Formats: sequence, C-alpha cells, structure tokens
Amino acid sequence: MRNLKMSIQYDGSKYKGWQKQKSDALTIQDKIESVLSKMTGEDIQVIGCGRTDAGVHAENYVANFHTDCQFKIETMMDYLYQFLPEDIVVKSMKDTSERFHARYNVKSKTYVYRINNNKFRNVFNRKYVYHTDEKLDLNEMRNATEVLIGTHDFQSFTSLKPNTKSTVRTINHIKITEDNGIIEIEVNGNGFLLNMVRIITGTLLEVGKGELKPKDVERILGEKKRSEAGPIAQAKGLTLKDVQY
Amino acid sequence: MRNLKMSIQYDGSKYKGWQKQKSDALTIQDKIESVLSKMTGEDIQVIGCGRTDAGVHAENYVANFHTDCQFKIETMMDYLYQFLPEDIVVKSMKDTSERFHARYNVKSKTYVYRINNNKFRNVFNRKYVYHTDEKLDLNEMRNATEVLIGTHDFQSFTSLKPNTKSTVRTINHIKITEDNGIIEIEVNGNGFLLNMVRIITGTLLEVGKGELKPKDVERILGEKKRSEAGPIAQAKGLTLKDVQY
Repeated sequence: MRNLKMSIQYDGSKYKGWQKQKSDALTIQDKIESVLSKMTGEDIQVIGCGRTDAGVHAENYVANFHTDCQFKIETMMDYLYQFLPEDIVVKSMKDTSERFHARYNVKSKTYVYRINNNKFRNVFNRKYVYHTDEKLDLNEMRNATEVLIGTHDFQSFTSLKPNTKSTVRTINHIKITEDNGIIEIEVNGNGFLLNMVRIITGTLLEVGKGELKPKDVERILGEKKRSEAGPIAQAKGLTLKDVQY
Repeated sequence: MRNLKMSIQYDGSKYKGWQKQKSDALTIQDKIESVLSKMTGEDIQVIGCGRTDAGVHAENYVANFHTDCQFKIETMMDYLYQFLPEDIVVKSMKDTSERFHARYNVKSKTYVYRINNNKFRNVFNRKYVYHTDEKLDLNEMRNATEVLIGTHDFQSFTSLKPNTKSTVRTINHIKITEDNGIIEIEVNGNGFLLNMVRIITGTLLEVGKGELKPKDVERILGEKKRSEAGPIAQAKGLTLKDVQY
C-alpha cells in the first residue's frame, strides 16, 4: 500500500478549520478526502498534521494518506487541482515510507500571525491580515516573548478547559518583524494547544499597546488561568507556515 | 466651494467597474457618492480619472468632488473608512485647486497586469492575479512590446467599435518583469481605450506561448482590426496602479 505525503495551501476563510466534524460543517479535510475518494474509488482517510481553527489559513499544511491506487503522482495532483475548490491547492505530493504519520511525526510547527498596522486596511490582503491602527511598541512585544520561549505550562494561553490534558508545550522561537507597516509574529514550537497562537498574539498586542508589561506576561504564564491572558486575536490573521519532521 | 482630490484603493472583484450606470449595476462610484452624499447632506458627484472594466482593481484610483462641507479632511476620511464596504478604501484626500479635474487633467496612467506562471494558482492572490502554467517566453514578449510604444491607432486593441471616436493613443512604456513566477506587465500611456490593456496582454500572452511572433504584433497594429489581435485577458489580473497629473 502506498503512503502519500502532501503539502497543502488553503485560504481558511470559509472553512470550519482543517478537521472533519460530526456536523455538516465545511472543513478542508472533508474536501480533500472527498476528491481523493472519488479519484481512487476507495474510502480515503487523510491524516493531517493537526487541527487548525476555523478561519485560519495554511501555506504548507502537511497530511498523508494510504491508498492502493497506482496513478502517477502527477496524475493525482492534476486531478486534485481540477476538482478541489479554488481556495485549496495541493502543492506537492510524494511517496513516503509506510511508517510516516503526518501528526505523530511532527517535530515542530511554524505559525505566522500577520498584522497590518498602517492607518487603513489594505483591500488586497484584508482576508489574511488583521488590521489595527493602534500604535504598537514592537520592542516591548519582543521583550514579552522572552518569558514564553522554552518549555512551560501554557494553560493561560489556551481555550482548553483545565485538567483535560497536559498543557505543557515547548516554544522554540518567537520572531517579530515589521516591513512597511505589516508586522509578522512567527511562532515555532513542538505543538500548540487550542487557540494558543491567537491568545499569545492577543496578549502580545496588549503589551504592544502598553496595557500589559512584559513582566505581566511572566505573571500570566505562572497563573495558569486563561482569564489572565489577553483576548484571542482574530483567526483571519493566522497562517500555518510550515511543519518540520 | 472646496474641491477635494482622493486616492482610492479597491478590489473590483464584485463591481461592474468604476463608473455608475443607468442600470442597478454595483459600481465603485455609486458606493463612494452614496457615502459622501450621506456625510455632506449634498448630492455629491464624484469625477473619476476614467472608467475601469468590471472586475478590474485599483491601487491608486484618483477622483475629485466639490462640496460646501467644511469637515476636516481627517473627519471625512474616518467617515468614509467607516461606511464604505471593506473592498474600497479612500487612502488619501486633500483640498486642491478649484480647477482640478480628475479626468481632464490626467497626463498618463499606469496599469499593471499580473500573471502567476507557476504550476498552480496561489490561493492567497487568486482574485488579483491571472494564472497560467503555460511556458511563456518573456524575451519574445518584451520584443513584441516595442512596436506598441509610441503614438499609434490602437483600433486592433480595443473592443470599441470602429469610427466611434479616435482610437489614437500614446504608450510611453511597457515593462515586463518576473519575480518568483509572478509576471508583471506594466503599461503606461496617456490614455487607454476600452479593454485596451487586457487585449494588449492577451496578445502578448500569445507571443509568449509562441503562437504569434513580435512581427505579427506590428502587422496586427497596422490592420486596425480587433479580430486580428489576441483574446482579451481576464479582468481580475488587471490593476490601475497610478495616475499621473
């Protein structure tokens, strides 16, 4: 049986996230499984690298699936390109080892949160970038990221209810860059809890506005209480950039 | 009476172009006049720098309007920002001389046609960039532009019926650049006929594919017959970049 690994780009605006749901909610996984099943005549199960929130985008989401279908890679990709909606593109596909598992084998993931900090929104990226014209102190935001780097209990930075599962994760880096008023917060870590990047971003934005100090972020981390952290940043600004194996 | 000059950015995807029409067609001019009229309590007529086709975008469309309203520029811009739909943004506004006329005073305009020539479309710019994975010879396309530079009768490159008005225009430059598979065809001229940039682009694409030679473009120009030129390129790839006065 073949095991095929894919890299997928999607505009998450109209989807309820990656993962299929019991309800009729529109998800990216559903769309891809449905096209692959039609193509192969099998009931294809796609294993994704993790969930993404409703409205979140991906530049290189990684997934794999098993099939007996012997089509050439190029044929499969053309088929997917033709039958997937215009907001989902399978960018690459390759045969991989039988043991590869897109979720279990993840070493780390890189997310990027984009903020347009110019006076007005830009109509051309308005669906992929969060806009605020409030003055942000990027250096204070950078200082605040320092306490988040490393292995911590991120209970304050997730919408997961306490005591359901371990909320310990490792953040490898957070880089904040700015170019022409577009701020990017890039977060790399070994795994992310429900809404974690968006709540970290919402908290960093409060720091940027001067409503919180970097030392408050240290306190919030220690409190292990969601209510201590900042608000959840809008989904549309978040993109899964890459997955490392 | 004040005369206010505006620079406007819009995503033309869902509009029937800039100019208001007798029908109920949704146009950018209608949207802006309606918000300005509400703001001032006057029947505001906005003078645009020209028509743009249905589905064409603008980075800096220039328009002006006369009003007795004495609001500060900042107040007016905030009002427009709040009440215009999210795909139209008035980027700047200033008081200008009484005689300024956004259409009559145009010296030249710069349009850019964007083509994604990678294997697959990119979901994030799919509404603003035309996608084709056919191999394009950019040097041949550049050679073909040479015969178009200067003052010519562009009857072959417009959907305007012959003998309705003068079809003589001057093209100052056509620059073709490429970056990461995104090709930009930038055209600057003193004025453009109906569909002119899109038909020039459609013709240059035929040259890029080898279906026409640069010397064919010279012949087409001389024929002064629309049927000789290439097809009209999709509206979504075209953006009015700047207007010079």
